[in-house]
Amino acid sequence: MDDKLYFSYAQIHDTVRRLAGVVNGSGFNPDVIVAIGTGGFIPARILKTFVDRPILTVGLKLYDENNRPASSPRKIQWIDEVEKKLSGKRILLVDEVDDSRTTLEYCLRELLTHRPREVAVAVLHSKRKPKRGAYPPEVTKIFVGQEIDDQWVVYPWDAVDIFDHERRAGALTNA
Amino acid sequence: MDDKLYFSYAQIHDTVRRLAGVVNGSGFNPDVIVAIGTGGFIPARILKTFVDRPILTVGLKLYDENNRPASSPRKIQWIDEVEKKLSGKRILLVDEVDDSRTTLEYCLRELLTHRPREVAVAVLHSKRKPKRGAYPPEVTKIFVGQEIDDQWVVYPWDAVDIFDHERRAGALTNA
Repeated sequence: MDDKLYFSYAQIHDTVRRLAGVVNGSGFNPDVIVAIGTGGFIPARILKTFVDRPILTVGLKLYDENNRPASSPRKIQWIDEVEKKLSGKRILLVDEVDDSRTTLEYCLRELLTHRPREVAVAVLHSKRKPKRGAYPPEVTKIFVGQEIDDQWVVYPWDAVDIFDHERRAGALTNA
Repeated sequence: MDDKLYFSYAQIHDTVRRLAGVVNGSGFNPDVIVAIGTGGFIPARILKTFVDRPILTVGLKLYDENNRPASSPRKIQWIDEVEKKLSGKRILLVDEVDDSRTTLEYCLRELLTHRPREVAVAVLHSKRKPKRGAYPPEVTKIFVGQEIDDQWVVYPWDAVDIFDHERRAGALTNA
């Protein structure tokens, strides 16, 4: 027994489906989905099944080359030619988890410099804990798939043995 | 009954694990993974668990704005500041399926203009069928997770009802 929180792929997928229902029902109609890499890649791609918009990605690294935490996130890939097109657009920024909120705040501040029409955030999970980062006031909507306790979360894409992982998560049962 | 081929997330994940084993055993040691969006996002993110390299993404669109097939792929997002860094690097290009090979050829030709040190390709599935595109001769290695018949493939990330999809695919059984 361990006290980590295991999510199966099906549970994640179904959480994204419900999250997409909330987005679609909210009146917020994004022009583009921006996925934060690499944690946001899988949630964003699933989201696209239910909110069919182009996905752009941004890559960030919170550790330096010696694997020591860096003082601030470092860009691995950023939207360049495309970022100019963000001006006047409605952006839905997607990540897997709102943990300390540091990465989300960093990305939001970067995106806001391009003067989008509107920016909203969608995360699979938000941990109930004090946040070090803050959502800039320009962010109009925050969509959360599921609030979770402040536990170690194990996502299926990080599993070395996926069959074992899925059994731990109770694979085919809805969370 | 339909004759579509359904893959569960666990089957996909396990295919990527085996594929990664072949990559790691091949002597090809990529500096960077390039994922073709949006089909390559999920395979690439899983691959990163076993071949831990930064992921860059490129976005392509094969249809024009009126949903008519375009004559050639159109870039949605491309690697810009980063692409200059591809020079001299070993790139592993990842997509979900080698179908007509058109998209793969297009991406490979674009990547090759940046004079990488080496380029290899990894796909989850390759369909047994005549290909319209061709791998440029500079591509040194082609890694294929699984050869499949020329059927309609249903990937789990496209499922509207994931629990139904996973049952169709025989979710927790190894393919």
